[in-house]
Amino acid sequence: MSPAAASLPAVSYSVPRRASEAGGEAFPLHLGDTWRTPPAGCRMEDLAAADHPGLYRYAPPQGLPALVDALLERTRAESGAAVQRKNLLVTAGATAGFAAVLGTLLSPGEELLLPAPHWPLAAGLARAFGAVPVQVPFHGLARSADEAVSLIAARTTPRTAALYLCSPNNPTGDVLPRAWIEALVEWAGREGLWVLSDEVFRDFVYEGEAAHAFALAPERTFSFRSFSKGYGMAGNRCGWVTGPLRPLGEALKMSTQLVYSAPTAAQLAALAALQGPGEAWIAEARRQYCGTGRRVAGRLRVPAPQGATFLFLDVARELDGEDLPAFLRRCAGRGLLLAPGPGFGPYPTHLRLCFSAAPPETVERGAELLAGMLGR
Amino acid sequence: MSPAAASLPAVSYSVPRRASEAGGEAFPLHLGDTWRTPPAGCRMEDLAAADHPGLYRYAPPQGLPALVDALLERTRAESGAAVQRKNLLVTAGATAGFAAVLGTLLSPGEELLLPAPHWPLAAGLARAFGAVPVQVPFHGLARSADEAVSLIAARTTPRTAALYLCSPNNPTGDVLPRAWIEALVEWAGREGLWVLSDEVFRDFVYEGEAAHAFALAPERTFSFRSFSKGYGMAGNRCGWVTGPLRPLGEALKMSTQLVYSAPTAAQLAALAALQGPGEAWIAEARRQYCGTGRRVAGRLRVPAPQGATFLFLDVARELDGEDLPAFLRRCAGRGLLLAPGPGFGPYPTHLRLCFSAAPPETVERGAELLAGMLGR
Repeated sequence: MSPAAASLPAVSYSVPRRASEAGGEAFPLHLGDTWRTPPAGCRMEDLAAADHPGLYRYAPPQGLPALVDALLERTRAESGAAVQRKNLLVTAGATAGFAAVLGTLLSPGEELLLPAPHWPLAAGLARAFGAVPVQVPFHGLARSADEAVSLIAARTTPRTAALYLCSPNNPTGDVLPRAWIEALVEWAGREGLWVLSDEVFRDFVYEGEAAHAFALAPERTFSFRSFSKGYGMAGNRCGWVTGPLRPLGEALKMSTQLVYSAPTAAQLAALAALQGPGEAWIAEARRQYCGTGRRVAGRLRVPAPQGATFLFLDVARELDGEDLPAFLRRCAGRGLLLAPGPGFGPYPTHLRLCFSAAPPETVERGAELLAGMLGR
Repeated sequence: MSPAAASLPAVSYSVPRRASEAGGEAFPLHLGDTWRTPPAGCRMEDLAAADHPGLYRYAPPQGLPALVDALLERTRAESGAAVQRKNLLVTAGATAGFAAVLGTLLSPGEELLLPAPHWPLAAGLARAFGAVPVQVPFHGLARSADEAVSLIAARTTPRTAALYLCSPNNPTGDVLPRAWIEALVEWAGREGLWVLSDEVFRDFVYEGEAAHAFALAPERTFSFRSFSKGYGMAGNRCGWVTGPLRPLGEALKMSTQLVYSAPTAAQLAALAALQGPGEAWIAEARRQYCGTGRRVAGRLRVPAPQGATFLFLDVARELDGEDLPAFLRRCAGRGLLLAPGPGFGPYPTHLRLCFSAAPPETVERGAELLAGMLGR
């Protein structure tokens, strides 16, 4: 067994399927997923082999040429960056994109700075390649661009190779001000670090503005995107990376080794969404998520999310001596599934609720149940 | 850039798209793919969200429970092995299965024995995790089980961690006799090595018998399977691994980090094929591939393949001083795409032709063109 494998955490997303055992209503709010189906015209049932002759064949490892073209156009429009075809790589979800890029950039023993709380897989992905995730408590602590840089810089060592950023953040929902991202990217440049910008929730900003980090420093920055969050295609496994030419060329080789190519049908569905009804779908989803997120945040007496589809709650006071796993088991016993804080960093008394994972009424009833259990 | 990434080969599958430039008929026989579409009822167009409520959501990282159940039943029936649910892992193609298992088993600097010629990605996958692929010329050389073991054993070092086997073999098409596989697995056990048995072409045996290696030594053997080859779903990205409980549990964590889950639609399509028309599809595909393979082997004056969907030809004599890339470029200029031998090991004058990658008449015309260019 490799030391890398031995160091991997069990993934906390895979919570017990207690809801079905409880027999009552299920509130599966633990996964970062959506209850919405993709736009009409962008579903599996819309894909006929007669219309798409290569539908069941391997796609080229970089991605279907038509999808790469559409993403080029979209990236230019969104960011103003002078992207070329070889700046883009279509991946089997943003997750596989991170795997390819982290496997390419990080040598064993090198460190990846993870502003915490952070997307759980980021730490395990660094470990998978023998690198060391360094969790830096950050979201909710920094109050200015200078403080943001100071918090991160304090944890830098000679082994630091890269900085991960995530805005809108999973799990806190905060949107980093553009000036902070600019300051962090500039600092990373001075330190000679790669920047890995997780922008999978970019389409879901309710307050503030999402930055496209690649455009800020195209020689050292990777922006990761996903069709899972926008367009509701998490199960399809399709995302894309924008990054610097030479390292992205190396990441293409890594991606080819690890998965060969992103699923062909998923790429065709993504292309259909980009060309057609995707924007309207996102606008409607954004409006609904924002409303639901604000209502459940209010009920749970936490600030409204600025973006993404999560609330990250500290329940230390209400646990009153009970440990978090025991509390989450009690929730699961009543049909309510939530993700435990320790998956996101040093947060032994936090939990994450995803407010897009079920229809709004279900989410609101789940939040009501949680509020009751917490006495809020 | 990690040393692992720097050591990755460019993947030789990605051959220039010259055929389209040539303007004439295209013979794209370089990829290990099929021209056949999946069985009716197992296509994307057959998947409606109304029938499959979780169609666009993440699947559980181990795989959809119904698919895991069906694979358990199939594995028991095929191999007689006493498999449990936790012996199975559904992956985003066999490739991602290898990534998860190699990343789990191999520590940096450890060696993976690769009987050559071998599936090209096997070498790069070992390198991706800092391990060392050791190519052992084997297929076509061993003449008995004892010789098979001797050839492999001669390349074993204190750093050897695992033995890769592939039968039916990609690219040679040979099917290892059951007694050889038994001898190799037994030898690996004595040496304390893992066995990684690539069985993705198991459904395409024309002579001899395919072994299910996991059943021979379930405590140290992984069998890799794919829905890409059987059922013609390469673009879907779905495969599965059968392996020992504890290391497969670790590989599940690795797989979750690298890709999260196999595409949901691909898993539903695979399940439909297992439950319904898959066997008839495979029987028909096997009959056709076997006939086409024998005819083109005859035309090219090489032995008929025992299995899989490839011919691996040594064209040293006909190159007459021209180097292989130049010859392959000339082929591409006439619309004929073939995979270069060096991707499969130390084979500077070999090429691989896939006889399932295009309809039989196209393959036969492509073989005729190649025979003419070789003066055969």
